Amino acid sequence: MVKVGIVGYGYWGKNLVRNFNALDNCELVYVCEKNPSLSEKCAKLYPNLKVVSDYEVLLNDDSISAIVIATPVDSHYPLSKLALEAGKNVLVEKPLTSSVEEAEHLYSLAKSKDLLLMVDHTFLYTGAVQLMKKKVDTKTIGNLQYIDSTRINLGLFQHDVNVLWDLAAHDISICLHLTGKVPVSVDAIGVSHTPNGIENIAFLTLKFEDNLIAHFNCSWVSPVKIRQMLIGGDEKMILYNDNEPTEKIKIYDTGFEAKTSEDRRRMLVDYRTGDINVPKIQNNEALSLMALDFINCIQNGGTPVSSAELGVTVVKILEAAQKSINNNESEVLIQNNESEVLMK
Amino acid sequence: MVKVGIVGYGYWGKNLVRNFNALDNCELVYVCEKNPSLSEKCAKLYPNLKVVSDYEVLLNDDSISAIVIATPVDSHYPLSKLALEAGKNVLVEKPLTSSVEEAEHLYSLAKSKDLLLMVDHTFLYTGAVQLMKKKVDTKTIGNLQYIDSTRINLGLFQHDVNVLWDLAAHDISICLHLTGKVPVSVDAIGVSHTPNGIENIAFLTLKFEDNLIAHFNCSWVSPVKIRQMLIGGDEKMILYNDNEPTEKIKIYDTGFEAKTSEDRRRMLVDYRTGDINVPKIQNNEALSLMALDFINCIQNGGTPVSSAELGVTVVKILEAAQKSINNNESEVLIQNNESEVLMK
Amino acid sequence: MVKVGIVGYGYWGKNLVRNFNALDNCELVYVCEKNPSLSEKCAKLYPNLKVVSDYEVLLNDDSISAIVIATPVDSHYPLSKLALEAGKNVLVEKPLTSSVEEAEHLYSLAKSKDLLLMVDHTFLYTGAVQLMKKKVDTKTIGNLQYIDSTRINLGLFQHDVNVLWDLAAHDISICLHLTGKVPVSVDAIGVSHTPNGIENIAFLTLKFEDNLIAHFNCSWVSPVKIRQMLIGGDEKMILYNDNEPTEKIKIYDTGFEAKTSEDRRRMLVDYRTGDINVPKIQNNEALSLMALDFINCIQNGGTPVSSAELGVTVVKILEAAQKSINNNESEVLIQNNESEVLMK
Amino acid sequence: MVKVGIVGYGYWGKNLVRNFNALDNCELVYVCEKNPSLSEKCAKLYPNLKVVSDYEVLLNDDSISAIVIATPVDSHYPLSKLALEAGKNVLVEKPLTSSVEEAEHLYSLAKSKDLLLMVDHTFLYTGAVQLMKKKVDTKTIGNLQYIDSTRINLGLFQHDVNVLWDLAAHDISICLHLTGKVPVSVDAIGVSHTPNGIENIAFLTLKFEDNLIAHFNCSWVSPVKIRQMLIGGDEKMILYNDNEPTEKIKIYDTGFEAKTSEDRRRMLVDYRTGDINVPKIQNNEALSLMALDFINCIQNGGTPVSSAELGVTVVKILEAAQKSINNNESEVLIQNNESEVLMK
Repeated sequence: MVKVGIVGYGYWGKNLVRNFNALDNCELVYVCEKNPSLSEKCAKLYPNLKVVSDYEVLLNDDSISAIVIATPVDSHYPLSKLALEAGKNVLVEKPLTSSVEEAEHLYSLAKSKDLLLMVDHTFLYTGAVQLMKKKVDTKTIGNLQYIDSTRINLGLFQHDVNVLWDLAAHDISICLHLTGKVPVSVDAIGVSHTPNGIENIAFLTLKFEDNLIAHFNCSWVSPVKIRQMLIGGDEKMILYNDNEPTEKIKIYDTGFEAKTSEDRRRMLVDYRTGDINVPKIQNNEALSLMALDFINCIQNGGTPVSSAELGVTVVKILEAAQKSINNNESEVLIQNNESEVLMK
Repeated sequence: MVKVGIVGYGYWGKNLVRNFNALDNCELVYVCEKNPSLSEKCAKLYPNLKVVSDYEVLLNDDSISAIVIATPVDSHYPLSKLALEAGKNVLVEKPLTSSVEEAEHLYSLAKSKDLLLMVDHTFLYTGAVQLMKKKVDTKTIGNLQYIDSTRINLGLFQHDVNVLWDLAAHDISICLHLTGKVPVSVDAIGVSHTPNGIENIAFLTLKFEDNLIAHFNCSWVSPVKIRQMLIGGDEKMILYNDNEPTEKIKIYDTGFEAKTSEDRRRMLVDYRTGDINVPKIQNNEALSLMALDFINCIQNGGTPVSSAELGVTVVKILEAAQKSINNNESEVLIQNNESEVLMK
Repeated sequence: MVKVGIVGYGYWGKNLVRNFNALDNCELVYVCEKNPSLSEKCAKLYPNLKVVSDYEVLLNDDSISAIVIATPVDSHYPLSKLALEAGKNVLVEKPLTSSVEEAEHLYSLAKSKDLLLMVDHTFLYTGAVQLMKKKVDTKTIGNLQYIDSTRINLGLFQHDVNVLWDLAAHDISICLHLTGKVPVSVDAIGVSHTPNGIENIAFLTLKFEDNLIAHFNCSWVSPVKIRQMLIGGDEKMILYNDNEPTEKIKIYDTGFEAKTSEDRRRMLVDYRTGDINVPKIQNNEALSLMALDFINCIQNGGTPVSSAELGVTVVKILEAAQKSINNNESEVLIQNNESEVLMK
Repeated sequence: MVKVGIVGYGYWGKNLVRNFNALDNCELVYVCEKNPSLSEKCAKLYPNLKVVSDYEVLLNDDSISAIVIATPVDSHYPLSKLALEAGKNVLVEKPLTSSVEEAEHLYSLAKSKDLLLMVDHTFLYTGAVQLMKKKVDTKTIGNLQYIDSTRINLGLFQHDVNVLWDLAAHDISICLHLTGKVPVSVDAIGVSHTPNGIENIAFLTLKFEDNLIAHFNCSWVSPVKIRQMLIGGDEKMILYNDNEPTEKIKIYDTGFEAKTSEDRRRMLVDYRTGDINVPKIQNNEALSLMALDFINCIQNGGTPVSSAELGVTVVKILEAAQKSINNNESEVLIQNNESEVLMK
């Protein structure tokens, strides 16, 4: 039985504690939380758990083989490093770290110690994304041509990272998962409406080989909440609306074909529309499946769906996006040397 | 009574003929159309009109004081130039021309001859845009912070211009009309999925002074038709959904405020949500109001809502966007020297 | 070539004139309209037509073999009777007449003279209804269990008939067409908010054999326009939303099954949900297909989709509904002796 | 401090336990549940509570002054009777009982013992209903003319009561709360598609004085979930869509006026459309406010929003509805002698 300690009982930590506590094939032993009011609440709700404020306790308990980190981004690296060095398998909240250098260091460290490093990109475990992954992998929609995502709402302004690190992290993970490819270039543009200069609106565009383009529109200052992604193939197209309670995915039998003859104006391209299919989606809790994947991979080996490789690549793209914003929206090339291997 | 000749009886020309023919304060005399099947249809439906195939007939008829041009983009310049040289007032389909050089030449020519040059940016005459203009001008929504537009559908691929020239032309005109400002810089990125290399998906971002940003998402290859624009002020925000039959505009009493104290994490910015107002919108036909504005300005002088200045600026932005796409998405600065004056 | 005269150039008459004028296999010769301003407009728009104010002219012209009647309901009977007596085939606006007695008399008259009598129930010619008819006839949705329709909006109050005669006439025609059955009983309830006592809100329920029930909710005083019909089978269910521009029909792979064992509470019935299919619908103009059906049946014989039999049954149900409202909502039985035959 | 015992830890009982356990001004002491697997779960999640299987324990504990009953409908009467006889204040799940006789007996019993009897009509405590109540009471929408509700979904078939007792109970409680009036007559019609003959689709119409009509469309066999209510006044109209996450209420500045002159056809009634207001709604948990109202009224006296009087009237209407269905949809008059007093 894998014994687990969770660090952080904030907004997301609560959800992780609830899910790991309910899993059958692991035992959640510790919750580490420095804030007294939070640790008190945790202790009251889970009398079976040991709630501590000192991270060392978890590191020094040899019965603990897995650490789950749900703390602010800038603490991901030091906490993960200590855990890996203490021989623990590690699950980290997204994004993995706040720099590529840190991310790659953690990745190498885990590899060298033969430990599991995993990032909690929860969306990859939703029924909607799993269904889209199947449609893409089986070429049901043909060759991917574009991904166009809008993830906007009136949201909490983060004090340390911009809207891309907060919101686009989700889109990038879904995009990498669906395509299985690392982008060639990154282009980003944004604006800040607060004195701290952190972008609260930003647009990120990834270019892949074979004319595949992905665009992510992220905002903390939209009056309406939109969670919408279009995935265009050359044979079918998918509309993924995460706001819909049940009809999240619509598959359009829609395509177009460039014709060779160019006799008549405006007729260069034929397009076709057919039926729409709205598949039934499994309604499992994604976070529970993510936790299960983590424990299963510790017990049985194997690579989790939300792998360290994918997590490193997400950070690479976010860092490149920041660079692009800082350099007046110029295109930033992604060095695919290693990460391309990683994504395979 | 202003006498009018219309060139082109294609998709949009038909609408113009119908509207000008119905106006009380002008007389539509000629339709010039080279395609025999189109000119036949026109003659049958409008026995009162003279349908000709030779543009010279219109130019040489001294009773004609106004020419309306509804032909492909690349013919806008030569046809407009001939008309202005013949002393006619000119209304041109959007976009005005396919280059800034041409646009500015027509602009100067009209000015020197004291003739009216106007571009048919029809959206500026819709009840929805007029209402938003009033809300912006009266500062009801506070200071403008962003415009975020999505204009996508499964559309006709143009053979000569990319999706920005086709679709973003609308958004740019609305944006310039609402803000009354010329952007400082233009950034665009796009992709083509056809052998001719013409972008069928493109994203355009304009930056203005005072942290105002405008983003336009345009596509000919979306399975769903979306016509949506968010206009964010620091006091209220507007959602403009042109697909809605009647409830096109929603005004959200939504705002946010950056706080100076930074004691607690994630609490840097307070936001506020209140009621939503869905104002009643006049349901007039925009094209009819546009035609009326053209005739009224010929008769009485004055500048039309959809002015030549605005039309020239639209072309400037589209040309800069193409340049940005060609230069790997780098930012292109707009020289505001003259056009800023123009927009006033 | 069938020669046609149309009586009435009001709201719906204009549409009929436009469509019959455009048909290839008939010649629209006359429009009869007493209102001078309407007849003038008609004459101006259609210089090829003879616009007259005297109905006798049409009746006495032996070359005319078809009369189309688009006048107020209470004139349907006398005008149709004259036309049939003059040996003309007749198409009447819905509803056929304002009483069953009149409807059955016209039906007998047409039969005895071997003339075509047809009612313009336009909805039967829409792509959406045609598609649903196919799904019902092929038992794709299993056995019909219920039809539940809502047809409400802020509408013109009719001065002579209540909201059921105005709006439910559409639903009843669709219901009869889909089921091919005459209801066993009619139950209606309504209320009037005007001094004339004409119901502006009413609810109509039809019961058929085999536990099939149909319910129609009609109102002239709803702030929102709803045009929605649910068609429930025991294997699949259809949602027909006529407000949707393209996705009018959704077929839910949804069903339920009553189980025989009753061991556990609340588990008597199992239900099942699966994918949803949104079929592509032909976008033809229904009115044009209706007009074509009329002319084709005159030329080639056969029964039109929107038959006199169906039209008579619609009037039977509307008259029974009024009787039910007047008798404090008691159930009114429909005598199926003849009309059941009619519907076959 | 009011001490509370809850009977029943099923679907709704769990929610009641969670809410009463969290209240500050009462102490939840007992949960009574006969099903061992349910009582075990309860004991595990709430180690602070006494979980028993014998109802007598609660009745015999003199420290307990309030009993909350969340069991199947047919046990509401015997359990409530025992509790009232034991001198306990009682809160019962909706509907109060399965017959008027039982309901009125409980009502008299509570009155004679000076105990609080309350029914959990939770919807009355939602922000949406509270806001509508205010708009109705302040005559913002003018005089009420109609209520039109649709409450349909693919739902659990109850084994003992029909769809009206399950779903319309909500609508009736909202309707009585908003109008403050008892209907004059009840008309219902329904159909069963299961061997047990229990209606799974039913339509209920209430008529009130002053031409106010209320219609409720209820179904367990709809493929889509609809929770929609129109409340029409003669000055404004409200659309209440409970499926909307935040924009639940839309207030239409829409009205109509019957004109006295009847010169022109179809012009008897003028209607008017204006802006729409979407008010911000408080997002409190209704169940918590309901529980608080119960405890407050025990402590301080007063009548709860969801009063016994209202609960009795709901049962009266449901019983009349069943009678109407059984008597072939004839109208059933409501004797208002006492209940009209009750509603004041």
